[in-house]
Amino acid sequence: MMRTRPLKVALLGCGVVGSEVARIMTTHADDLAARIGAPVELAGVAVRRPDKVRGGVPAELITTDATALVKRGDIDVVVEVIGGIEPARTLITTAFEHGASVVSANKALLAQDGASLYAAAEQHGQDLYYEAAVAGAIPLIRPLRESLAGDKINRVMGIVNGTTNFILDKMDTSGAGYSEALDEATALGYAEADPTADVEAFDAAAKAAILAGIAFHTRVRLDDVYREGMTEVTAADFASAKEMGCTIKLLAICERAADGGSVTARVHPAMIPLSHPLASVREAYNAVFVEAEAAGQLMFYGPGAGGSPTASAVLGDVVAVCRNRLNEATGPGESAYTQLPVSSMGEVVTRYHISLDVADKPGVLAQVATVFAEHGVSIDTVRQQGKDGEASLVVVTHRAPDAALSGTVEALRKLDTVRGVASIMRVEGE
Amino acid sequence: MMRTRPLKVALLGCGVVGSEVARIMTTHADDLAARIGAPVELAGVAVRRPDKVRGGVPAELITTDATALVKRGDIDVVVEVIGGIEPARTLITTAFEHGASVVSANKALLAQDGASLYAAAEQHGQDLYYEAAVAGAIPLIRPLRESLAGDKINRVMGIVNGTTNFILDKMDTSGAGYSEALDEATALGYAEADPTADVEAFDAAAKAAILAGIAFHTRVRLDDVYREGMTEVTAADFASAKEMGCTIKLLAICERAADGGSVTARVHPAMIPLSHPLASVREAYNAVFVEAEAAGQLMFYGPGAGGSPTASAVLGDVVAVCRNRLNEATGPGESAYTQLPVSSMGEVVTRYHISLDVADKPGVLAQVATVFAEHGVSIDTVRQQGKDGEASLVVVTHRAPDAALSGTVEALRKLDTVRGVASIMRVEGE
Repeated sequence: MMRTRPLKVALLGCGVVGSEVARIMTTHADDLAARIGAPVELAGVAVRRPDKVRGGVPAELITTDATALVKRGDIDVVVEVIGGIEPARTLITTAFEHGASVVSANKALLAQDGASLYAAAEQHGQDLYYEAAVAGAIPLIRPLRESLAGDKINRVMGIVNGTTNFILDKMDTSGAGYSEALDEATALGYAEADPTADVEAFDAAAKAAILAGIAFHTRVRLDDVYREGMTEVTAADFASAKEMGCTIKLLAICERAADGGSVTARVHPAMIPLSHPLASVREAYNAVFVEAEAAGQLMFYGPGAGGSPTASAVLGDVVAVCRNRLNEATGPGESAYTQLPVSSMGEVVTRYHISLDVADKPGVLAQVATVFAEHGVSIDTVRQQGKDGEASLVVVTHRAPDAALSGTVEALRKLDTVRGVASIMRVEGE
Repeated sequence: MMRTRPLKVALLGCGVVGSEVARIMTTHADDLAARIGAPVELAGVAVRRPDKVRGGVPAELITTDATALVKRGDIDVVVEVIGGIEPARTLITTAFEHGASVVSANKALLAQDGASLYAAAEQHGQDLYYEAAVAGAIPLIRPLRESLAGDKINRVMGIVNGTTNFILDKMDTSGAGYSEALDEATALGYAEADPTADVEAFDAAAKAAILAGIAFHTRVRLDDVYREGMTEVTAADFASAKEMGCTIKLLAICERAADGGSVTARVHPAMIPLSHPLASVREAYNAVFVEAEAAGQLMFYGPGAGGSPTASAVLGDVVAVCRNRLNEATGPGESAYTQLPVSSMGEVVTRYHISLDVADKPGVLAQVATVFAEHGVSIDTVRQQGKDGEASLVVVTHRAPDAALSGTVEALRKLDTVRGVASIMRVEGE
């Protein structure tokens, strides 16, 4: 059964992930060959700095000319682990044009240009696989695209960024503030020197766009995703969360509207009950909770980043793409047939936890409650605490549209008796 | 792009799962067509009792002649949700012979005859898919076979039977004994009138055989799986578990030996630490923990049974098989190239929690400790409790081969000072 001409893989990038892909391809060559039905070999590795020695990659495979590598014509699969928009995008489309399929781990590029990359792949009869782009080693793209292809997904809610989960977990367990926890994450290598992409949730937003598109069979652009980072989360917020039996996570949430006619995608910190499976996701782990009409509630959990886990996801895709080539077939392409519109954050319906600093005098609660009522936001619980002439009010609402809550908060700020809005946090998972 | 001749599905069995498959195929026909790239229609439904009305299935599709249905020659996919060995086995092979691929939820048959069914599928160029056979709606077979195809799986440990997890969870949370918890499970419909297949772990053992075969790319027969039911688990065991910071779960465990040269598969009740992700799997939910060389620790969680969840898994497979047919290709077949031997339970290395009823006199602990030492089983902790002339000894061991532990227990029973071995339970997940 086994053919002898090997399938050829070109590797673009040989950093933490790429070098691990190369290592496993070498050390596990026999297993990969048996699973594919043909041997697979590393045919070239494009890097920026060829002088930087990479463990295990033969020097003769290394090149600085990535374009020439993807144009060679004898490459079956291009593995793109460079990241960023360019030159990755051009290299991927060039690969398709020259008869290669592509396995990518590039969430930023897929979130921004997924549709045009899919179109290029289809035009040239090639595969585009990207399991590693969301939640690292956790099988998620394939289960959503294939295992749940006979079901209707209504909600995807997940922790898809390990850095921020590490920081929030530290804040939760140690009582540390944000900067202290960030410093620890940086020292341990969980956060980059410039943590913006993680802590401002750009990374999670890209993943939310990809997940929403797949889950709802529609196109969701990065700009469609509401994004709120987690730099403003305080130790006081965690204390409030604990009083409610909750913790705080940075969640990516993709939802189908109740009427089914639109979808939303958003990333923001939120309180979730300790009893929710996502609440116990610790350190830099990722987990994604999926609600489907027939399947019910599913959860996928595992390491969301790191060289080896990401290489595992990449190589699973390499095996799939190689099998497709031997079958002279391609796997499922883009599925965006529903063309559902993406609604804005104002239309998202959820619950809110709001802390107000108020004057400690009679009638304040009545005033505040009136403002909520006028905006159609129903109050679930109120807790009032007085201290030294000042007081705080903690309001937890029933489900209400985000726009109604924003209107409420704007009006609250104008009240003489409200000295400040200490925090607003959404409450999910109930 | 869309072809107009529909793909035809024959449904064998129209009980809890089958009727849900039929319902979703009708109500979500447009979605299924869009995802497959061609319409798909229900071409016939074989049942034993045609007089029993099935919601939504047109009377003209119903037949009692399953054999004639699978022999029709125009069927693309046969969905087998009858269960049991015969007539399911003959119908599946007949389907292959007559040009149909098969989607099955039949764990007993796949555990017993998976290899010959795969061979028949391959001989006739057909697909055999069975995501629904293990852990219901949880995408597990596809992630193990495809997403992790570039990785090396070392361990699969899961809760794969919802009935027994429901019973154990009740015992844990309410302090109930086994029979009381079983009665509640029966009353709520979680346990069948004859619960043997579940509580004696035949069901879980079949799933362990399937999972071990896929995970290690070898053949594991049902007879290779060590099986111990959970009817002997007592409220006292749960009390002991709590003292250790553990709970008790019925676990299916598939492991690669440390030297990589063999594998084991077993199902038995075990203590696991409350901090382990499997400990918090409540009620009738299932979850499977996977340890792979590169990916690290992954967990898959969701409903393990029920009509709708199982139908979701079946339909995911139907979509995949239909796509394959449009591609004139087949998906991955059996992967058993490693041909690793399956070791017996005696070679499994794990930890043990042993409760002994002993005479309350000096020297007993020394005697008991000597027996452990003579059998090469190292003791981690001992707790001694005296009450009214009797005493109990609770011993927790370090990791030791199961055969050594069995020898230890046999020798302990012969000691005059040991009045009885109250319980032996393995300790996993540490």
